[in-house]
Parts: sequence; C-alpha cells; structure tokens
Amino acid sequence: MMTTIEGLGEFALITRVTSQFPRTADVILGPGDDAAVVASPDGRTVASTDLLVEGRHFKREWSTARDVGHRAVAQNYADIMAMGARPTGMLIGFAAPPDLPVVWAEEFTAGARDECALAGGAVVGGDMVGSDVLTIAVTALGDLEGRSPVRRDGARPGEIVAYTGHLGLSAAGLALLDQGLEGPGECLDEHRRPSPPYTAGPEAARLGATAMLDVSDGLLQDLGHIAASSGVAIDLESEAFSPEPALLEAVRVLGAPEGKALDAARRLMLSGGEDHALAAVFPSEVELPDHWRRVGATRSLPEGARSGDVRVTVDGTVMDGGGWDHFRRG
Amino acid sequence: MMTTIEGLGEFALITRVTSQFPRTADVILGPGDDAAVVASPDGRTVASTDLLVEGRHFKREWSTARDVGHRAVAQNYADIMAMGARPTGMLIGFAAPPDLPVVWAEEFTAGARDECALAGGAVVGGDMVGSDVLTIAVTALGDLEGRSPVRRDGARPGEIVAYTGHLGLSAAGLALLDQGLEGPGECLDEHRRPSPPYTAGPEAARLGATAMLDVSDGLLQDLGHIAASSGVAIDLESEAFSPEPALLEAVRVLGAPEGKALDAARRLMLSGGEDHALAAVFPSEVELPDHWRRVGATRSLPEGARSGDVRVTVDGTVMDGGGWDHFRRG
Repeated sequence: MMTTIEGLGEFALITRVTSQFPRTADVILGPGDDAAVVASPDGRTVASTDLLVEGRHFKREWSTARDVGHRAVAQNYADIMAMGARPTGMLIGFAAPPDLPVVWAEEFTAGARDECALAGGAVVGGDMVGSDVLTIAVTALGDLEGRSPVRRDGARPGEIVAYTGHLGLSAAGLALLDQGLEGPGECLDEHRRPSPPYTAGPEAARLGATAMLDVSDGLLQDLGHIAASSGVAIDLESEAFSPEPALLEAVRVLGAPEGKALDAARRLMLSGGEDHALAAVFPSEVELPDHWRRVGATRSLPEGARSGDVRVTVDGTVMDGGGWDHFRRG
Repeated sequence: MMTTIEGLGEFALITRVTSQFPRTADVILGPGDDAAVVASPDGRTVASTDLLVEGRHFKREWSTARDVGHRAVAQNYADIMAMGARPTGMLIGFAAPPDLPVVWAEEFTAGARDECALAGGAVVGGDMVGSDVLTIAVTALGDLEGRSPVRRDGARPGEIVAYTGHLGLSAAGLALLDQGLEGPGECLDEHRRPSPPYTAGPEAARLGATAMLDVSDGLLQDLGHIAASSGVAIDLESEAFSPEPALLEAVRVLGAPEGKALDAARRLMLSGGEDHALAAVFPSEVELPDHWRRVGATRSLPEGARSGDVRVTVDGTVMDGGGWDHFRRG
C-alpha cells in the first residue's frame, strides 16, 4: 500500500522534504524557524507569488509530480528574472489532501530542487497544510545586483521589440495532451516543464532594456501590458516569427493542413499561454545577442488614442490575442 | 443579485483590490509588474509563508471576510516579528471559486489592508486564480534593521522563559464558536482577528532574547521546539499563568465547574492553538518590561537525555501538549 501524507504525518513529511534542499550562499537561515533569512545584498528584494491549483494549472494525469515541481519553480523565478534580477530564495506552500501519496510530495520536491539548481535559487521555507484541492503556492525572491528593475512602463517610441526563449511550444503541448496525442515530445516537455531563459533577464537589464516581462498569458496579450503601461503602440511582423521544427510538427499532428501549418504555428507563438519566454523592448542602438529574436518595434500612439484601445498589431492588423481569465469556467 | 468574481473578471478584480493598498516607504515597486520590489536596507530579508484553507483554517459562517483578511496578515507578520524583524512587505495569493461574491474579496482586502497598517507593512503583490476551495497564500517579508535574527536554537540553561500577548483566548473562541456560543466577545475576536504584539519582537531582540517564536500550535508544543533546537529543558510554573478575565469567563461558559475554571483556563493557555503570542528566552539578568510575563526557566538536559524526549514540564510534570497535525482528519 502506498504511504499517504496523512499516514506519515506533517512533521515527518516536512523533515523529509526540507532535508532535500541544498543551501546556497544566499541562504542565511533555511527552513525550520518562524521565518527564513535570505541575503539581499542590493538592499532591495524582488518578490513574486503564484498559485498552482490541481485541475486548473496542472493535472496529475498529464504531469508527473516532478514536472509540477519544476514548473512551480520555473514560472516563479521567470517573474524574478523578468525584472532583471537574479533568483535567490523561494518559499513553497503546499496544501494537499490527506490521501496524497508521500511519493508524490517527494517527487514534487525533487523537481522543485532540480529547477532551483537550474535557476540558481534555493528553497528556504514553506508551509504544509491539508486541503481537498492540491494547491501549491510559490513565492520567489531575487536580488537586483545594483541594477534598476526593468518594469513594463519604460518603453519609448522607436525602440526594438524582441524575445528569447520558446514561444508556442507550451500551448501546443497542452493542445496535444488535451487530445491524447503523444508527440512531438519537445512541446509536451515545454508544457510540463517550461524552460525560462533565466540568465537572459539580467542580461537584458545590462543591455539597457527599457521594458520587459515574462510571457505567460500569450505574447500579444503580454506585449499589450507593455504598450498600455508605457503609452506606446507595438507593431509586430509575422515574418520575424520562425517556429521551431517541433512546433510546426505539432500543428501538423493537431490537424493543420500543410499550407496552413506556418500560420497556425505563428498563431500559437503569438497567443499561446504559459510560454515563460522573455519579451523585452530595447533602444534601437542596442546590439542584441543571437538568442534574442527581433520581432517588431514600438511607435508613438496615434493621435486621439484612448486608454483601452488595442495597441499591438501584427503586420499592421489588430489580431485577437486570446488570453486567459482565471475565473472564467472551461 | 450579488456580483461574483467570475462576473467581474480577473483583471477588473485585481485593479479594484490593489487600488486599496497604500504604499509605505518600503515599497519601491508595488503590484502590477512581474514582481514587486521591497526595500531591505539590512541586506538580509526575513521571509515566511502560510496557507489558509476554507473549512480548515477559517469558516465563512464563523468569520467575516474582513476577519479573514486581518488573520491572514496577522499570522504571517507574527512570524516576521518573532525573528526580531520589522514587517515590510507582503504578497497575497488568492484562489477562489468563481461564484465568490466580489464583496467578500473586497472585505477581505479591507481587513488585510487594516492589519497591515497595524503591523507597519504593505501589500506589494499577489496572484488571483480560480479554485473550488477558497485558499489564501500569504508571504510576509521583514527587515532585521541590523539585528541578528532570533532563532529557536539559541536558548542556554539558566535563562528566563517569558511570553507577551494573549494566550488561550483564540482556542477558547474556537471552542465557543464550535458550540454556537456568542461570548465572551474578547475570545471570539481573538480567534477571528488575532492581535500579535508586533513591536515586542524587535523589542525582545534588542533586549537580548536568545530564542523566540510565534505561539501558533500551543505554548507547550512551541516551547518544545525551542527546547529541542536549543538542547535545553524548560520548566514552567502554572502559578505564573494568570488567565485574562475573558478567558476565565469563557471556560465557565464552556461548562467548567467553578472550582476547575482556573485549571481549565491555564490548560488553554498552555495548549491552545493560534494564539500568535510571542514566547522568548532571555538571559537571567535582563529586566523585562511589564508586558512580558515570566513563566519559567531553562535548565540543562538531564544526563542521558535523548533527542525526542519530552523536555517541557509544568510544575515538574510532563503535560500532554496537544498540538496540531494539519494532515490528520477531523
């Protein structure tokens, strides 16, 4: 019989889980006290929080516990690096039904630990409680290393819009899983374990990015936030979006006719959620490293533009960005 | 008809909620970007996280939304001050069913805002998602102002054990609610809106406390953590525990015979959960301000004591501390 967390008990589970997390140089005091203490040498702390709810943000049938651990950490540290900061520490709240197998909690922990190692941060604390719905609350902390935070509202007209990371693969992976399809694996993997370009955030800040964000709700919708906050329009060129081979393969597997595969793939790159790529705006004179893909430019708002007007175009046309509203059903 | 959060929509709700939170001097960048930026002038950040699950940590029949907002903030900032730190910023994750009335979210926000004002911290960010179970994830941040964090493991033999804040009232309040009893109001209030002695944490650190913690699982169990971590025994004297009049009244209302009311009240002070009082150990020469109540002393472990042995006595006797395991049912 599988041991459940109820059978093991809260304190034994906490001990078993926290012993897995290595300490980094940023950990001044790790789990086990009222609170953790994390280094913030910059004198400012960057902080972000996310909730992952079973059935809404992950499914145990579609993702392993290890995948969910990776994802919980990845999507949060993606927010930290999208400010131009370096991940330092993380707190994980874990609300679970009493019949959750201990092995699920352990595998989740292993995934979180491994993703922390990729991102360079540590797990420093958390909470464990019972709930009928498996829910994971992650809070990530980061250090700016003396840089200014790269916000959403700093873009100016005449600048370059670029991204780095994977666009569209996660949404394709979700669609494949939804239809019970097994490949291409890169898309399934990217949905189960997104791979944010962690070092690109601080890099963009050093390069002088004027605005930046983590692409989580779809590129069009997220660039809409930059446009609205900064008071600029953004024009994208569809030709600049070169789908990865796995994405093209995925849209074919999903039924796109041959002549429409490129369009379908680009649509996923523009509108698919949960990419955790990084989108940024740079002054036009910045020379971008190769892993940044230039996809458009900012311009002044047309005269008479009002707050709420759509400000992101693709090939000169406003495209429906899709996007997510977490309280809408199905 | 009551407007639900599904009807209002995620972004409108976020706008409505975040506009309520005032900025303090510690808020460098508030809600609305990928992450918040909070001042941490000490160069170290104290961080703690808690989950509150409806039906387990609060009931909508027993507590107003405003109460839950107060409590969510209070129990988290209590952890910050129990390290000797000053509350600075807070992130609130909010997972709610689509049919939650908007007014509940707004009242929760108002309670959280008001408790933040009491504690001196600010709400700087959060997350809103859908879930079948109303769940609130709070992460609190604090600044040590140059002091050393007061941990659980620093107590030495021959020191003073003391507490400040309210003991037993919250547990009495819970028992009263459970039996449908309406008073005494101080106990109900303390359960619904605990009042941690926020400034006493930094004060204790300045006075030289060697160990300290937030009393959340019952004083005996929590002092057991200090004893185990520090490698000392703790002896408490029941005579030192003077129940507040409201607590004595509550145990009478709950049915304690007149001759047993004092004992019953002291039992709640020793074992009741969710007090959010502050317990600390001080060197014997420290002169404690009046709001600290001296209740016992530390001594060396008896020879041959092993890890796991019970190390907290009351009047020389080991008492069952009760205590909570969050994964056990009912």
